Amino acid sequence: MKKYNIVTIGGGTGSFTLLSGLKKYPVNISAIVSMADDGGSTGRLRDELGVLPPGDVRQCLVALSDSTQTLRDLMNYRFEKGDLAGHNFGNLFLSALEKTQGGFLRGVEEVSQILNVKGTVIPVSSQDMVLNIELKNKKVIVGEKQLDHNQDVRNIGIKRVYLKPKVQASESAVAVIKKADMIVIGPGDHYGSIVPNLLVEGIPQAIAKSKAKVVYNCNLTNKRGQTDGFDLDRYAEEINGYIGKERIDFVLSNSNGLSKYLVEKYEKKEGKDSIVKFNADKKEKRRYRVVVASVVKMIGAPKRKNDALAETRSFIRHDSGKLAKVLMMILEMDEYNNLIKEII
Amino acid sequence: MKKYNIVTIGGGTGSFTLLSGLKKYPVNISAIVSMADDGGSTGRLRDELGVLPPGDVRQCLVALSDSTQTLRDLMNYRFEKGDLAGHNFGNLFLSALEKTQGGFLRGVEEVSQILNVKGTVIPVSSQDMVLNIELKNKKVIVGEKQLDHNQDVRNIGIKRVYLKPKVQASESAVAVIKKADMIVIGPGDHYGSIVPNLLVEGIPQAIAKSKAKVVYNCNLTNKRGQTDGFDLDRYAEEINGYIGKERIDFVLSNSNGLSKYLVEKYEKKEGKDSIVKFNADKKEKRRYRVVVASVVKMIGAPKRKNDALAETRSFIRHDSGKLAKVLMMILEMDEYNNLIKEII
Repeated sequence: MKKYNIVTIGGGTGSFTLLSGLKKYPVNISAIVSMADDGGSTGRLRDELGVLPPGDVRQCLVALSDSTQTLRDLMNYRFEKGDLAGHNFGNLFLSALEKTQGGFLRGVEEVSQILNVKGTVIPVSSQDMVLNIELKNKKVIVGEKQLDHNQDVRNIGIKRVYLKPKVQASESAVAVIKKADMIVIGPGDHYGSIVPNLLVEGIPQAIAKSKAKVVYNCNLTNKRGQTDGFDLDRYAEEINGYIGKERIDFVLSNSNGLSKYLVEKYEKKEGKDSIVKFNADKKEKRRYRVVVASVVKMIGAPKRKNDALAETRSFIRHDSGKLAKVLMMILEMDEYNNLIKEII
Repeated sequence: MKKYNIVTIGGGTGSFTLLSGLKKYPVNISAIVSMADDGGSTGRLRDELGVLPPGDVRQCLVALSDSTQTLRDLMNYRFEKGDLAGHNFGNLFLSALEKTQGGFLRGVEEVSQILNVKGTVIPVSSQDMVLNIELKNKKVIVGEKQLDHNQDVRNIGIKRVYLKPKVQASESAVAVIKKADMIVIGPGDHYGSIVPNLLVEGIPQAIAKSKAKVVYNCNLTNKRGQTDGFDLDRYAEEINGYIGKERIDFVLSNSNGLSKYLVEKYEKKEGKDSIVKFNADKKEKRRYRVVVASVVKMIGAPKRKNDALAETRSFIRHDSGKLAKVLMMILEMDEYNNLIKEII
């Protein structure tokens, strides 16, 4: 069995889900992670210590870790009291290693060994990434965390995002893209996790040149002020636009019927078109093929009324196992088609 | 990822090929092996020491072994001189363990540990299996090795084969069939390796009752006096007949164009219809689906004329990697079809 090289591009919860599923297959995984996060524990560490953002990298390390549950829980442990309240132990660990080991990349390597990580976690850049958000009224606001916390974003809407200053891709990110059999973009927050990776100089160029199958895990839901009314084709066109070439080969579209409860919850918060639609007849020709598959975690309404905890936990999210399975099928599709002529 | 239970039924080179390919996938493999062999080194050990036949079991152990090449070569090493000439070291090893460990099964367990075997090799029975071959003129000849070495078989032809005395299936063989997700019958010599397994009391009954997908790797070539003119459907019907129920779900048929050189070589030795054919229109309805796939090792004519070594080595054989890949696809077909609605 050929050991395929899979490169994932993203950050945050989306990458955690994807990598947790993929790690169960005998493949070489390289996870390229955005360094634009500046919210929460990560943001405080960036501000106060001048370190690179550890949060997204930590999530990917834990997802790919083959160590004990205890050690993985420890990495994700969030302090609840005192000066440390809100900080993840894993973030502090990575930041301390960055300081003592002479660089963030060395720190990631150390933690990878300790956590017995199956694969490689690669910061997209080792330079400081600062996301600039230009609103439709030309006003520019600075910082990735503004996306979800600044009311102007929701009310006025985003025109474009960019990095200032410009940053270069890390050498290892470009190297793994070059050797990839499959590049998986997303899932992840569109402007918060996916696009920032594609703004790093060297990344779009490497993807454009690569011979890999490029799969885009399209977002499941839209965000008010950010991606209002985007459908699957619009997302794919945006991503191709950032790559600078119609490079996507496959786009994953969810076929699951979502529970009425979840749809209503999203529409209430993010507006009427908050579930991403796919209309097969909209375009006559697509350079990419759309794989309509069951990839979402099924969550119904909370069993008890006013179950606040269940309610805050019920999101429309990709299912780790289903997502990985469908990606593996896409990866092996050619090989199957080459071997099997017909089934009678 | 679900870890599937795969049970293979066979013996000899066919099982070696199949298991060498399957072992590269993350599946639980149980290899059920015929104990009817009585030729060569194995036959001498049966006759002289009264042990169970080690040859087929050894081949399966080596195929599933994850140990060094040195150790695997050692197991297959064939002595060339003196009293030991013709004996495989591995056969002697297994027979010596049978004597010192109080039974063949214990010996197999010991060797499995030493060879770091990925899976379980299970003798179909721990009783002495003696193949009786009834010819078309009612004459009965005794011993599996007669199939390929008795001219009466080639000239008169086989009516049927049976075991005398009857033997019972080993408990572990029945147990693994019960838990199987997929049962793979063949590849292997029809009357020499496959049918003897199905003559063991308890095996056909267990297969008939099992909920597994049953895949039959149909023979690629026919043998004069044994399976003259058999086509794919005839083979499948015979196997279903031995099972006592139309239990086969999939039959693999080779789609590769075989080299003219190989076809001529076989036709010269085994007769005009020596390549197994499949005619999709022959039957209106089949209980089994026929998977037409590229599963044969491609071998052309020897590069130099009169290259005797290349000539003796060029057989029509299954390709280990292709065979395993197609089987994995069949195994996962339902899961894929459940997940993927359509590709647009």
